[in-house]
Amino acid sequence: MTNSREIRLTSRPNGLPTAANFELHSTTLPDPAGGEVQVRNRWMSVDPFMRLRMNDMPGGPPPFQLGHALDGDAIGEVIASNDPSLVVGDLVQSGFGWREAFNAPASAVRRLDPGSLPPQAFLGVAGMPGLTAYAGLQRVADLRDGDVVFVSGAAGTVGSLVCQMAKARGHMVIGSAGGARKGAYLKEIGVDRCIDYKAEEGLTGALLAAAPDGIDVYFDNVGGEHLEAALTAGRPSARIVLCGAISMYNRMTPPVGPRNPILMIAKQMRMEGVTGFAQMHLMADFQRDLAQWVQGGKVTWKETVFEGIEKAPEAFLGLFEGENIGKMLVKLA
Amino acid sequence: MTNSREIRLTSRPNGLPTAANFELHSTTLPDPAGGEVQVRNRWMSVDPFMRLRMNDMPGGPPPFQLGHALDGDAIGEVIASNDPSLVVGDLVQSGFGWREAFNAPASAVRRLDPGSLPPQAFLGVAGMPGLTAYAGLQRVADLRDGDVVFVSGAAGTVGSLVCQMAKARGHMVIGSAGGARKGAYLKEIGVDRCIDYKAEEGLTGALLAAAPDGIDVYFDNVGGEHLEAALTAGRPSARIVLCGAISMYNRMTPPVGPRNPILMIAKQMRMEGVTGFAQMHLMADFQRDLAQWVQGGKVTWKETVFEGIEKAPEAFLGLFEGENIGKMLVKLA
Repeated sequence: MTNSREIRLTSRPNGLPTAANFELHSTTLPDPAGGEVQVRNRWMSVDPFMRLRMNDMPGGPPPFQLGHALDGDAIGEVIASNDPSLVVGDLVQSGFGWREAFNAPASAVRRLDPGSLPPQAFLGVAGMPGLTAYAGLQRVADLRDGDVVFVSGAAGTVGSLVCQMAKARGHMVIGSAGGARKGAYLKEIGVDRCIDYKAEEGLTGALLAAAPDGIDVYFDNVGGEHLEAALTAGRPSARIVLCGAISMYNRMTPPVGPRNPILMIAKQMRMEGVTGFAQMHLMADFQRDLAQWVQGGKVTWKETVFEGIEKAPEAFLGLFEGENIGKMLVKLA
Repeated sequence: MTNSREIRLTSRPNGLPTAANFELHSTTLPDPAGGEVQVRNRWMSVDPFMRLRMNDMPGGPPPFQLGHALDGDAIGEVIASNDPSLVVGDLVQSGFGWREAFNAPASAVRRLDPGSLPPQAFLGVAGMPGLTAYAGLQRVADLRDGDVVFVSGAAGTVGSLVCQMAKARGHMVIGSAGGARKGAYLKEIGVDRCIDYKAEEGLTGALLAAAPDGIDVYFDNVGGEHLEAALTAGRPSARIVLCGAISMYNRMTPPVGPRNPILMIAKQMRMEGVTGFAQMHLMADFQRDLAQWVQGGKVTWKETVFEGIEKAPEAFLGLFEGENIGKMLVKLA
């Protein structure tokens, strides 16, 4: 019998979530059944898109179930095994986050060999967020020499990797993030021009001031006004990678959308959605390239870490307050 | 000395244009100078996008000049030539519409050999609008077997050609147009399901009723609510061809845009603008394919014709009242 605590969703947030939407619940795990392993989580991820799963809307992503533990990406260690494929001490990655420990079929977790990287990197820069950045830039943005690249959410996991990958290819990069602390970080990672969107009257004006001749690629993690500004500043044949829309996730009533998609016609612009989940076939390429960039000093990353399962809701809520530079993580043990 | 009448723009429309924004002006042409031809226009085109050129907005298309004749696509006949490359009687296509006759350098007009088609077809189905439909479907929509195709403005020049090209490839086609007369026309050209958007409470509901499993391609001539509905009804990897946005052209203040581009992320949808002007390299392919489709009875087209230069403003305004089935033309002589 192993004790575990988990975070359950007790009510669906109306707009911005609060601590009251969550509860900490204690449970005990039986020994793992045949074919199962028991895993103690070391790290768990909180991600902005999880907010969408807290809604239950037709056409939306699979909703989290009320009264049950949330789930998400996690790294843990096998503490008991009833399956020959995994042994005690193995590091594994799974979708069973938001809990301290769990039992699961061995086939539902993946053994992790972190190599020279810290294990938690596989929740961020070396994991699904990193793959999304990579696939978005390699497959959707279709970068051409000399392209000016605009990135929103530029101090986040995906955004900061996109900025550095674009810089490694020699592009001029404009990054948007909120506040001076993030602006300083963007300078550290080589971003050429930084927009502090919280300090600007209007984002379109700020973007056109940063890129007087317009932009060729926009990597969108924010949506809303950022997307509208990019449509206006886009040069002919500009490409927009839709990766996230954190400014929209808490809107219960449909917000005003970008008012200017009409500009895409004459400018022959392209806009395309990307998710890492659908790009798993690129993972090996990505991890190989990433290892080289990290070794060559071209890619670095940051983490913002909360400690203890009881802090997981606070970490999650912090995403929407712009608390994090780099990957927001919860360290569990 | 040749008399000619022309339509001038006297003021910039505020929203929907009215007859008061135009005036009929009489002028006389000198004999053509060396290297010039004198052309009497037979047909001229009025096109929705011309509305945008009636504005004078930063970042917009080149504005028409107040107090000067408008311009646009036209077919005429050389009535005097002072250049060896063209002789009296030659049919020519030019950008000198909205006037009965004009002098221009021979290099500024193109000799037209209409073959088996009526000359005015080269202002519509066999000209730039046709090329736009073709390029949008061939290059942007990336049609795959079994795709469900949704077309707005489906009774217009571009829309009706897109519908027929998609039907010729065996696709299920849903067309939107306003009113029963247009709906009957869509049936005639083989459209599987017709949406009369003027009779529907909500376009998203109507589209989902017509395509319960969603759509794979949307060819947008309308923008606004149509675009929003298509984003909702789009299946994973759906493609949206942005060709026109007639519902937006008269909005002086930015309208509310589609509120749901966020859906493009998880569905990995793609949206891309297309103009015929940028696809001129496909013209020969297009005209060859079109000739085959016309011969094979797979493509037909309609015209809505006004007679006389003085009717040109009325024809243009009719575009925004949904007067036309097929190509809106003004016959000049």
